Amino acid sequence: MSGLRIRFSPGNLETTVEQGVTLLEAARRAGAYVGAICGGEGICGKCRVIVRKGDVEGQSTEFLTRDEIRRGYVLACQVYPRSDLVVEIPPESRLTGYVGIGEDSRRFRDFSLRLAEPPPALSPLVEKFALSLPEPTLDNPTADQERLLSAVARKRPGPLQMGLKVTRELPRLLRRCEVARSSWKWTWNGNVTATVALRGPVNEVLCVERGDTSRRNFGLALDVGTTTVVAHLVDLTTGITREAAAKYNSQIRFGADVITRINYARQPGGAEALHQAVIEDIETLIEELSRQTQIGRGDIQCIVAAGNTAMLHFLLGLEVDVIRLAPFVPAASAPPPVRAAELGLRIHPRGILYTMPMVGSFVGGDVTAGILASEIYRAEELSLLLDIGTNGEVVLGNKEFLTACSASAGPAFEGGSVGCGMRAASGAIDSLRISMPGPVISATTIDGQPPLGLCGTGLIDALAELFIAGLLDRGGRFQPSAAPKHFRMAEDDGGAEFVVVGREQSGSNRDIVITQADVENLIRTKASIYAAVDSLIQSVGVRYSDIRRVYIAGAFGNRLNVSSCVTIGLLPDLPPERIQFIGNSSVAGARLVMVSRAMYEQMQQIVERITYQDLIVDAGYMERFTSACFLPHTDLKRFPTVASHITARLGSALAPH
Amino acid sequence: MSGLRIRFSPGNLETTVEQGVTLLEAARRAGAYVGAICGGEGICGKCRVIVRKGDVEGQSTEFLTRDEIRRGYVLACQVYPRSDLVVEIPPESRLTGYVGIGEDSRRFRDFSLRLAEPPPALSPLVEKFALSLPEPTLDNPTADQERLLSAVARKRPGPLQMGLKVTRELPRLLRRCEVARSSWKWTWNGNVTATVALRGPVNEVLCVERGDTSRRNFGLALDVGTTTVVAHLVDLTTGITREAAAKYNSQIRFGADVITRINYARQPGGAEALHQAVIEDIETLIEELSRQTQIGRGDIQCIVAAGNTAMLHFLLGLEVDVIRLAPFVPAASAPPPVRAAELGLRIHPRGILYTMPMVGSFVGGDVTAGILASEIYRAEELSLLLDIGTNGEVVLGNKEFLTACSASAGPAFEGGSVGCGMRAASGAIDSLRISMPGPVISATTIDGQPPLGLCGTGLIDALAELFIAGLLDRGGRFQPSAAPKHFRMAEDDGGAEFVVVGREQSGSNRDIVITQADVENLIRTKASIYAAVDSLIQSVGVRYSDIRRVYIAGAFGNRLNVSSCVTIGLLPDLPPERIQFIGNSSVAGARLVMVSRAMYEQMQQIVERITYQDLIVDAGYMERFTSACFLPHTDLKRFPTVASHITARLGSALAPH
Repeated sequence: MSGLRIRFSPGNLETTVEQGVTLLEAARRAGAYVGAICGGEGICGKCRVIVRKGDVEGQSTEFLTRDEIRRGYVLACQVYPRSDLVVEIPPESRLTGYVGIGEDSRRFRDFSLRLAEPPPALSPLVEKFALSLPEPTLDNPTADQERLLSAVARKRPGPLQMGLKVTRELPRLLRRCEVARSSWKWTWNGNVTATVALRGPVNEVLCVERGDTSRRNFGLALDVGTTTVVAHLVDLTTGITREAAAKYNSQIRFGADVITRINYARQPGGAEALHQAVIEDIETLIEELSRQTQIGRGDIQCIVAAGNTAMLHFLLGLEVDVIRLAPFVPAASAPPPVRAAELGLRIHPRGILYTMPMVGSFVGGDVTAGILASEIYRAEELSLLLDIGTNGEVVLGNKEFLTACSASAGPAFEGGSVGCGMRAASGAIDSLRISMPGPVISATTIDGQPPLGLCGTGLIDALAELFIAGLLDRGGRFQPSAAPKHFRMAEDDGGAEFVVVGREQSGSNRDIVITQADVENLIRTKASIYAAVDSLIQSVGVRYSDIRRVYIAGAFGNRLNVSSCVTIGLLPDLPPERIQFIGNSSVAGARLVMVSRAMYEQMQQIVERITYQDLIVDAGYMERFTSACFLPHTDLKRFPTVASHITARLGSALAPH
Repeated sequence: MSGLRIRFSPGNLETTVEQGVTLLEAARRAGAYVGAICGGEGICGKCRVIVRKGDVEGQSTEFLTRDEIRRGYVLACQVYPRSDLVVEIPPESRLTGYVGIGEDSRRFRDFSLRLAEPPPALSPLVEKFALSLPEPTLDNPTADQERLLSAVARKRPGPLQMGLKVTRELPRLLRRCEVARSSWKWTWNGNVTATVALRGPVNEVLCVERGDTSRRNFGLALDVGTTTVVAHLVDLTTGITREAAAKYNSQIRFGADVITRINYARQPGGAEALHQAVIEDIETLIEELSRQTQIGRGDIQCIVAAGNTAMLHFLLGLEVDVIRLAPFVPAASAPPPVRAAELGLRIHPRGILYTMPMVGSFVGGDVTAGILASEIYRAEELSLLLDIGTNGEVVLGNKEFLTACSASAGPAFEGGSVGCGMRAASGAIDSLRISMPGPVISATTIDGQPPLGLCGTGLIDALAELFIAGLLDRGGRFQPSAAPKHFRMAEDDGGAEFVVVGREQSGSNRDIVITQADVENLIRTKASIYAAVDSLIQSVGVRYSDIRRVYIAGAFGNRLNVSSCVTIGLLPDLPPERIQFIGNSSVAGARLVMVSRAMYEQMQQIVERITYQDLIVDAGYMERFTSACFLPHTDLKRFPTVASHITARLGSALAPH
């Protein structure tokens, strides 16, 4: 009846499991991250681990080569320990912990500095007021609570609330009690600071402190992304971000995309595990920010959380299953502000967590935040906002109208459903050039580490460069004859695959390749987003040339090459100066709301203005998608710049060297 | 180092205490009630107990006769056990548990029936709405929370709130989840009942239940009196009281009056003990009402609590010490509605406790409730409201103005500071007649039990009858010569005392007497109340004859003899038809507020209209008090009816029989 001891390296993490538990589940219990995009269903092939010692049982799979199987590779989700094990997690299956550590921290730092300008009028959701309450007299014996509330009301008009706990503390905060010759003496001390938070239609006095603590007022702007959780610690007295930090969403261990996680949540204890995972991530970020800035948790008075609808539901512990099933109804689209402590977040004990409002199951609080941060809601000119993640959210509009839709893009741009795809972690190829003839491939990797795979920006570059180099045709089919040395037959299906980096140069001891299937996946992904844009354009009845601004949001956007995006037909062919990266607009919107009640009000109005276009019921969407499943599109007239590149290449190919 | 075992009878309650603990404290720890009006300071002489076995040390006191000391009587607060003890608590020191048990229950029952008429427009603070929410569709995928809130908003307009807990439950309340052939199926079930409570400026959805539960909606109207806690269980769908119960406030074991309890609260753990005592009393009443009516605690959605300022502070766990000291500032005069569960009251887990607003430290939520219940706030005619308890609160006014003051009457009318005084419990003489010549004394006792002492109504009758019989002069001095057999010399000070019931007829094996000091106490008490009325009359500039209505409130009022009150000069000499008992107006006001949001609003307006007259800073009050320290008053012209009685008595005394 004794369990099996499983040890994972690196990290020497150990656990004991009973028979019948998968190796992936054992890794979860040991706290060892193993990439598992599909959530353990054996269909993504990402949970590769090497069994160094001991026996497992379970099927071998199409995802492993014969050689790898010989070397001990297994898919962790498909095998069951039969003895004590020693398991190695190879680099390609590991998760880099903090995104914000090392080289990457600067990326986040720079971004935070770009957001550091205070908003026009500072009026944070939680404010601190230093008060000097006059001492009560027989002529003016107003009760402590009412004395305080009337002083606060002069600073912030409108209905006021105050909880019992604060009321209980008040008499002893407003007086010093001394015992002199066995008689008690209360000495008035009216200099206090009241912390006041907006809570729906009323203001709540969260706490009262002795003296003037009004300078110590901080808030956390949060983006709970499917892949990354980003936090900005904002000084609410200036509106400026003091420090930012980011971390992978540790829900990834339950699945890389939203649907996989929602399915996992159905298991007994699953929803709670997902909820706890994100809470622990935020706790880690708070700890990190507190350590870096020497700002105490107790001085953080509020959190404003943005994120897609599923992530915000997980954060709040709301039922997610209904999001996934027609008619796709969220539990709440404007969840109530709650005490952060109720969720287990240890900021000020009475601190409030606000949630960015959502439009529906597919247009979440990240999109509304993006609309706010990009300011398209008040622009004269027609603007397009693209938030490209596992789902691609698209918003088209200006100060007159806002229309939004969501395309199920799939995880290809995040490294999922692509053999050598990976997240934008250390060792990921994030930009790539192919020069012909040759081809000569030059690439950069994150942190300058030996390459392990390709992240989204690298994959987009690869697709664009392969196409421009003539190694892919407009239908997305490889042209091996154009560079025979770089192509080979795939072991499994016999299709062609392009070797980006050979085993000897890679950090994972295997070739980094792009297969025909990968190309198809990437084209489907970009096509779904382009078709979504197309649907909005059509429904509104405008032309592409009417779009004066394209905003691209997402952590992903930071190293994205606009030209590559246009080349593959992900973005419309517009003058480059109209296209702008705005980085993580989700956290930027959360921060705006946190420092400005006007923005908080604005946010509610924006949500009501948005018209949601459901692509599932849009008869034309499928046709638009099919037309977009070409490079760059079936209708080349839409992409004159790309057309001229092709002409130039054909010209140079024809021209004698 | 082993403790001393102390056993109390009746009840066989036992405890073990260390050396140095008083016998009174031992009784508290054993859970045995021993009357201790002064809170254990040795000045009231009420904590008489009989040591049957074992030794105590401590001083003998002036409150015990030599004979009693011989029989083992001690004052529990003044002696310390030196060995294991067996202690008897004699009847006069005991507390009858429930007021509402036996004969007395009818008194409360009748009273509750008198309040049973529903108010004109029923609109309770907490309402239940049966809803039928339409099933979401692709065209109408509104989130569950917003779907519910918009349905509620149609029933009750205005800003709405909903807590995270309820939001979390909503998706599973609105659907049934079935697992069929390993796939999940959610079936819509939109028939639910929402419980909605007014919370300050917003309405809160307290909970949502499946099906139509709108008939199961109850509330508790509460009067937390210094002496008695009264609860009405009200059906919020009809506004009618289903059952009422009452219980002595078990804070009495820490002191009979407010000041003694506030002093006790200074001890370590004292405030918490007082808070817990009243919470346990309310819990006991809820249990009792739930048992009698078969209504579950979970169907009680709210509590509205009235009571004086100190009692409401104890109830909420607010700091009370500042009430007691100049400038007499409460912690809160309009405490926030709180979840009853936060106070440890087990009604519906999210049920709300509302507190009647207070005017100041001396005009509490019982007085504002009384103003509401008596309707003097909207009367055309000038009205006077007297709430006679340990403090006498007086309100004078009509729809144009309201002015209030509080007189520190002392506990004489509740049995305190009077040798043979007692609370209105079994065996208390509650009415009394003295016929001359003789004198022939006839009396009634509560529950018809052998007499143990005199309660407030008995004491007022005694004072009036002794005066009319000529056994007391206008200055309050005994006239022993008028009935020599009934007077004797007091053992302690040699003053005269009047024997009401001889030892052989009493239930306590001692004479029931009224001493000269008792008379002086009673006169001071009635004078303080009359002087308070006089102060209001003077400040407003009206005449007594302008008062068209006098309302007397207090449980005390139920057996009060109006004529006796006028005779001793407690009430002004007005035509009897203008004087009306309204019983417990505190609980009546709480009930009104609970069943009517209009009354709740009215209540807030009333509080703002009330002008508080502080008698401490009123230069004329002392003079008015001195003038009132006569029977009925120094100015006999104010009491023409009493004057004619005196003339009649003198006439009959002179007339030959």
